[in-house]
Amino acid sequence: MTTATFAKKMYIAGELTDGQGTVDVLNPANDQLVASVPTAGIDDADRALAAARDAFPMWSRTSIAERQMWMHKLRDAVIANEDHLRDCMHHEMGKPWGNTQEDFDSLKNSLEFYADEIARIHDTAVADRAGTHTHRLVHEPAGVALAFLAWNFPLLNLAFKIGPAMAAGCPIIIRPSEQTPISAYAVGELCAQTGLPPGVVQILCTDGYDVADHLSASPVPALITLIGSTKTGQHIMRTGATSIKKYSMELGGNAPVLIFPDADLDVAADIVCGVKFNNAGQICVSPNRVFVHQDVLEEFTAQAVAKAQNAGVGWDKTADILTGPVIDGRAWARLKGLIDGAAAGGAQVLAGGDRPGDLPDGHFLAPTVLGNVTEDMDVYRQETFGPIVSIIPFDDDTDLDRMANDCDEGGLTAYIFTRDLALAEDWAARLRYGEVQINGVKYDIDLPHGGIGQSGIGHDCSTLALHDYLVIKRITRALPA
Amino acid sequence: MTTATFAKKMYIAGELTDGQGTVDVLNPANDQLVASVPTAGIDDADRALAAARDAFPMWSRTSIAERQMWMHKLRDAVIANEDHLRDCMHHEMGKPWGNTQEDFDSLKNSLEFYADEIARIHDTAVADRAGTHTHRLVHEPAGVALAFLAWNFPLLNLAFKIGPAMAAGCPIIIRPSEQTPISAYAVGELCAQTGLPPGVVQILCTDGYDVADHLSASPVPALITLIGSTKTGQHIMRTGATSIKKYSMELGGNAPVLIFPDADLDVAADIVCGVKFNNAGQICVSPNRVFVHQDVLEEFTAQAVAKAQNAGVGWDKTADILTGPVIDGRAWARLKGLIDGAAAGGAQVLAGGDRPGDLPDGHFLAPTVLGNVTEDMDVYRQETFGPIVSIIPFDDDTDLDRMANDCDEGGLTAYIFTRDLALAEDWAARLRYGEVQINGVKYDIDLPHGGIGQSGIGHDCSTLALHDYLVIKRITRALPA
Amino acid sequence: MTTATFAKKMYIAGELTDGQGTVDVLNPANDQLVASVPTAGIDDADRALAAARDAFPMWSRTSIAERQMWMHKLRDAVIANEDHLRDCMHHEMGKPWGNTQEDFDSLKNSLEFYADEIARIHDTAVADRAGTHTHRLVHEPAGVALAFLAWNFPLLNLAFKIGPAMAAGCPIIIRPSEQTPISAYAVGELCAQTGLPPGVVQILCTDGYDVADHLSASPVPALITLIGSTKTGQHIMRTGATSIKKYSMELGGNAPVLIFPDADLDVAADIVCGVKFNNAGQICVSPNRVFVHQDVLEEFTAQAVAKAQNAGVGWDKTADILTGPVIDGRAWARLKGLIDGAAAGGAQVLAGGDRPGDLPDGHFLAPTVLGNVTEDMDVYRQETFGPIVSIIPFDDDTDLDRMANDCDEGGLTAYIFTRDLALAEDWAARLRYGEVQINGVKYDIDLPHGGIGQSGIGHDCSTLALHDYLVIKRITRALPA
Amino acid sequence: MTTATFAKKMYIAGELTDGQGTVDVLNPANDQLVASVPTAGIDDADRALAAARDAFPMWSRTSIAERQMWMHKLRDAVIANEDHLRDCMHHEMGKPWGNTQEDFDSLKNSLEFYADEIARIHDTAVADRAGTHTHRLVHEPAGVALAFLAWNFPLLNLAFKIGPAMAAGCPIIIRPSEQTPISAYAVGELCAQTGLPPGVVQILCTDGYDVADHLSASPVPALITLIGSTKTGQHIMRTGATSIKKYSMELGGNAPVLIFPDADLDVAADIVCGVKFNNAGQICVSPNRVFVHQDVLEEFTAQAVAKAQNAGVGWDKTADILTGPVIDGRAWARLKGLIDGAAAGGAQVLAGGDRPGDLPDGHFLAPTVLGNVTEDMDVYRQETFGPIVSIIPFDDDTDLDRMANDCDEGGLTAYIFTRDLALAEDWAARLRYGEVQINGVKYDIDLPHGGIGQSGIGHDCSTLALHDYLVIKRITRALPA
Repeated sequence: MTTATFAKKMYIAGELTDGQGTVDVLNPANDQLVASVPTAGIDDADRALAAARDAFPMWSRTSIAERQMWMHKLRDAVIANEDHLRDCMHHEMGKPWGNTQEDFDSLKNSLEFYADEIARIHDTAVADRAGTHTHRLVHEPAGVALAFLAWNFPLLNLAFKIGPAMAAGCPIIIRPSEQTPISAYAVGELCAQTGLPPGVVQILCTDGYDVADHLSASPVPALITLIGSTKTGQHIMRTGATSIKKYSMELGGNAPVLIFPDADLDVAADIVCGVKFNNAGQICVSPNRVFVHQDVLEEFTAQAVAKAQNAGVGWDKTADILTGPVIDGRAWARLKGLIDGAAAGGAQVLAGGDRPGDLPDGHFLAPTVLGNVTEDMDVYRQETFGPIVSIIPFDDDTDLDRMANDCDEGGLTAYIFTRDLALAEDWAARLRYGEVQINGVKYDIDLPHGGIGQSGIGHDCSTLALHDYLVIKRITRALPA
Repeated sequence: MTTATFAKKMYIAGELTDGQGTVDVLNPANDQLVASVPTAGIDDADRALAAARDAFPMWSRTSIAERQMWMHKLRDAVIANEDHLRDCMHHEMGKPWGNTQEDFDSLKNSLEFYADEIARIHDTAVADRAGTHTHRLVHEPAGVALAFLAWNFPLLNLAFKIGPAMAAGCPIIIRPSEQTPISAYAVGELCAQTGLPPGVVQILCTDGYDVADHLSASPVPALITLIGSTKTGQHIMRTGATSIKKYSMELGGNAPVLIFPDADLDVAADIVCGVKFNNAGQICVSPNRVFVHQDVLEEFTAQAVAKAQNAGVGWDKTADILTGPVIDGRAWARLKGLIDGAAAGGAQVLAGGDRPGDLPDGHFLAPTVLGNVTEDMDVYRQETFGPIVSIIPFDDDTDLDRMANDCDEGGLTAYIFTRDLALAEDWAARLRYGEVQINGVKYDIDLPHGGIGQSGIGHDCSTLALHDYLVIKRITRALPA
Repeated sequence: MTTATFAKKMYIAGELTDGQGTVDVLNPANDQLVASVPTAGIDDADRALAAARDAFPMWSRTSIAERQMWMHKLRDAVIANEDHLRDCMHHEMGKPWGNTQEDFDSLKNSLEFYADEIARIHDTAVADRAGTHTHRLVHEPAGVALAFLAWNFPLLNLAFKIGPAMAAGCPIIIRPSEQTPISAYAVGELCAQTGLPPGVVQILCTDGYDVADHLSASPVPALITLIGSTKTGQHIMRTGATSIKKYSMELGGNAPVLIFPDADLDVAADIVCGVKFNNAGQICVSPNRVFVHQDVLEEFTAQAVAKAQNAGVGWDKTADILTGPVIDGRAWARLKGLIDGAAAGGAQVLAGGDRPGDLPDGHFLAPTVLGNVTEDMDVYRQETFGPIVSIIPFDDDTDLDRMANDCDEGGLTAYIFTRDLALAEDWAARLRYGEVQINGVKYDIDLPHGGIGQSGIGHDCSTLALHDYLVIKRITRALPA
Repeated sequence: MTTATFAKKMYIAGELTDGQGTVDVLNPANDQLVASVPTAGIDDADRALAAARDAFPMWSRTSIAERQMWMHKLRDAVIANEDHLRDCMHHEMGKPWGNTQEDFDSLKNSLEFYADEIARIHDTAVADRAGTHTHRLVHEPAGVALAFLAWNFPLLNLAFKIGPAMAAGCPIIIRPSEQTPISAYAVGELCAQTGLPPGVVQILCTDGYDVADHLSASPVPALITLIGSTKTGQHIMRTGATSIKKYSMELGGNAPVLIFPDADLDVAADIVCGVKFNNAGQICVSPNRVFVHQDVLEEFTAQAVAKAQNAGVGWDKTADILTGPVIDGRAWARLKGLIDGAAAGGAQVLAGGDRPGDLPDGHFLAPTVLGNVTEDMDVYRQETFGPIVSIIPFDDDTDLDRMANDCDEGGLTAYIFTRDLALAEDWAARLRYGEVQINGVKYDIDLPHGGIGQSGIGHDCSTLALHDYLVIKRITRALPA
């Protein structure tokens, strides 16, 4: 596979186009150039904004059946290009081949699900007590959507936005991460191939803040949606405040895991290590602080260590790889710093902790298990976003309520493992997180995904996401006397 | 009635308290001092923020029945003080006595309605297709709410916030306008009297931007809600962007009215002039641009002029007053400028246009009707927020779609008058406004009120407002294998 | 109190009226005549049917606000007559004074709740995929309702019907039991007092099947609702099949209780004995078969026996009475037969089992606890409807699934007591009953109440009951091309 | 095509099987034998009941995903056999080839739509005001369903039942009409081919009442659903009353059409004649009484007559046939009697009225238009169920409200044609029909279809149909103190 295979065009105003700059995309598994792709300048951004704005009257009035038709066309093109789309991600972020399946499936499922779901958004009325008026509440598309995506799930993140936007009748401008634009650009190619009406979807990358801020500050978008950090979320809301906009944002987390003495430890270790080592732990819902009761500390730790040691690491399409490289050298250095800082503060490095011996190149970090992590450590306080399991022992005297809810970045996902459902329910009520997962973990296109507090506004997935792209108009009519 | 009668304390952390500054409240009907009331300093604001934050764990877990009990207690106190509360508004903004009824009723109704409505917010689940998990979606209070209120409906605006906040379990900090804090402070007194748990409601005024911005910029509020201008909305979103917050904002509008040849002109003139001359037209949903078809221009104009000339103007509790003073001299001068500018540009001043001859004092503007208003005039482009009916003739060649939807400030309310419902429905679909009123107008606590686009986010009134104060937590549980 | 105090009129076509027969109502506590009250003949029934049919066009189009006004008027009259209404029940069925509270509260709450709830029934629409039509789904009152009530909760049963019927806009004909018509007739008096429009509510008693069948067989009722036995339900559906009608029926049950070894036995004994000995166990949701795990059999039994022995029995307004008489001599004999049959079959009579020694008169049965009840006994197979706790021991080898679900009469309520919520949830899924109560019991006007299978159709209480009185009309409109 | 091609087996307990009798199916286009097919005896019925009852525990607990898989498998088999399925109907009822498309599409769409829709049935909760309990409302399949189908849409009718039953988790016994069992038996063959679990679907025909009544009277079905006449509905409810069952029934109608002077007559004539002459007018929603305002009587009548005269009549797969034969000689004679009776009473036979001259064989009735139909005629009072347009002139003095609502059989569909939507809305509110179609007509799998009053209970199509197959279980749990 050569770089020639990868898409190298932005998709603006219905056309595949070059930009005013380029960015080199490097495969973090080997630091080799995957492709040099165009980035948008201010003019490109303005063209995209204008095209989206101009497409809104048409697209917002397009019938559901016709929107469904376009979504199914795009889905069919996506399915026909499965291998290529997965290969894009395999290269642009060194994502293990197996991990690319979830991204691909999400895109396929989102186009399918939201095409169905929009036909289930039914208008309502409000009863008029006096019987003198009628009041209908009509759902209408909010307007142009602007989506900033994170690099960790190049197509899943894109899927979570393109599906509801297309279904809702909102033209969307998608800005993939400049680190992983290639699979998104490939989707742009498919949009062009299917002949989607110009302006309905646009995919362009920006380099640096200027053009991105220009997009955010424009009065054209009615909605800005983001998958990224809380800090970026704040920046975007500040930049966007030149006009009144809606926001739908999935941001950072510092997910706690509570493992009680009666937990099924096999299940707990499977899930904690699964969500931590898959995708190199670069997952917004990844368990970040694993609170393990003293009574089961030894056993759980042993299982986690074994899983860390047995996890396949590397970048090889034909091998059974669980953990790929982290996104770049800066990320690697940050993670290494967290581990070393923890170790310096008294944590035990029970597995991993450094580059795997057999992988001298690329930004690989061996699946890591840290024991005795404490509250003062950076690895406790920050969202690690890497393949590091941080174990914090607790016993009946620990103020677990305070610790589990201590989450400045706050509130995306929490995990509870116990066979005692009354205990689980009690904790589910007490944890201030948008998602509480008990004795398992499940995400799917029909399950709402979203944090509370500093972790986000609105939702991805499910019918709730659709409502982020819709507004409600009340139509009141006085009845004849 | 002397100034001694009016409340002169802020209500913070469960106590009636003085502040670090004072502001003089003048009755715009006569420029006399109504009361000099305390304003919050940074310390007061911090105390309020801390009290609200501290009250959240308690109030958010208080049972619905107990929250209902407190709301009913406060409602009873409000009812017992009807005359006093209405008198506060009668003085602080020169609001005609009759107009104060709507404010009072709104407060009473909001405490009643939301106490009922919160018991109708039922959690839901999501079906699990594989049958391996359960997924519950639980409504939880969003956190501390911060409310900035406009001066035009001192208690109605407060009602729209205090009801859903108390019901939802969100402690609220209410900042009334520094021009009309007196009735709000009176509600603070009632809160203190009823013994509401400290921190659940707080009412404090700020003078200048510093303390208000300090409140907005605090990470304590999870939600900022505003009734005010689009510009203020933008400012608050920018200031609030120090943390991720929800916003619920009712902002400006530039409401069009479409009067077609077959309209019931009596009804149209009643409603246009009613909503324009009541409260001196200082109403966010007030008709701003009255498009009248040539065929009925003469008759509609004649009716509007007659209504303008016959409207009771003044400030007299015992007289039949429709139109009181505008809020202050600055507002008067702005309105006079709009009229004079329009006249200079070719509009006809058909009624009013200046201070009524018999009211030499106070900021009274005679109910005004302008004919031949055109697109280039400020009175056309700006939300007037005064008792001015601007008539724009149209005929079948007019690009009414463009003009009616030309609304930079955008999208709160639009009015349609025609007996042809197919025409009305067609226009209701085309108008990009949050509320379309056909052949009548109706607002009530159970009817959603909110703009789209630059005119707002979220809703006041109805069950929709409650959702602005709630977040959704997903609780997923893996079923035993 | 003499019989003179009690209402002696039916309420038909807006008038208090005598009938074509009379029935003597005896107080089962002492077999003394409470009152001799009129019963309807065919002519009376026809008058009621005609009045209801004629009232439908008016009442179905009466605004919600006006219906609310009438319901609040009636509620106020009910509140003003609390003592009298409770006294009626105290006499007509010997119901302990304390027990009459629930009946009274239900009537008050139903009139309040449904007046609110009907304003929450909001019409909906169906999205049109092709964008060529609109489709509204409008709720309309179903038509005339006919309600047959059981005697066990004279006013609670009436409350469950009159509230949703009045709110929904359905004229209702209420036929109370001929054994307890007095409190219902008293409500008829209050309807007359408040000046309710004629035909909206009618209350008449029938003696024997002829007139009741005449009502059921009439094509006038659009809905027949019943609280009674499964057998009666079948009879009514057969009789009513002369025209197409809706049915909403709360019928018999054979409620199982599952008490697992880890249950909170105090709570379990409280609830089992509470719901069994209150109202002399004449409650449709009363635990009928108490399955107790061997490990806790001794302790649970001891608690149940103690509660049986300590329960206040008798008919004395001033004493602390839990258990009054059963409804009549036939019921007493049936219950005695069940006990004796069980004893003959090997069950142990651990408490009660016969008339209390100190109550030689009236149809009192001492609170009874039977141990070692087995599947072949009538007391196991039949709904006892009396103050008899039947204990069936089980252990881990018992086929509890089959036994708990073995319920020919089927499916109203089941109880589970265990601290292991996973176990409770598993059983809640497996039990084919309309209501599963875990570690407690709760009924209220806002909680749906209804059986499945042979135990009923539709619901009492909650918003679901309202839907039994409504039908849905689809209004489709082709949009102009 | 010979009779050998057509399916000749019932499908019971997962097996294709013969029965205890046979029935000859004749093509009404030529009275030739299509096939002689088996009918069920009591033993066959018992086998079907037992298989359905036994399948319920398994099927009701099968995951949604697995039920979807089976439904998609069956849909794929249906699609693969489109021509054959349509040919069955073309022969068994002489249905024009073009008309068979709707039947086929309905089956395909139902299997698709309900597979999706069941995943949108989300459980809910009820808020607990005291905060002491939780209350979940869980949807569960009602139990075994028994469906009696009419012959007019052999596969559409089957589609409306098999989709929701399979999706809801209810085993279903389908009894097609003995006049058109062939296409249904073909579906049974496809069920057998796909290897559907035994008992989930069963398709058997009965001859005479005995076996049908045996099915209805069995306590096994929890739900009986019917498409048929009001009389049959009553019979089934009476027969079924041996146990408590749910009913979902689409019955007869006597659909009025109101054509006002300002109607679009082209559209009105298209729709009236379309729904009247298609399928030989054997459609439950067919316009039965066409009220035409005097002002447009002449023009509408001329258009209707022209359409009647130009309609293709016959039975020829390759020709453009609109109107096929009516179902049998008895139906033909009844329709001829209605026409002759009307003519004798003063109606004008403006088109048709007898067998078409060029079709000496088969039960063809030429598309007929009757003018001056009056209230006393049978053709006015009865549902014609044939290709007869009955025109009743009206003017402003006519009591149109009474006449349009005069519908003993009552309440399925009504049509309104006017450009004045206020008038249309007013009539839509006044007409006591389950469906009101304004200026058009639309049916689809996602649009609720059902009558009110004597015309039916419950719904076919849309999410509402699914609820007919579900019951609600309340699971209440006391929270730990």
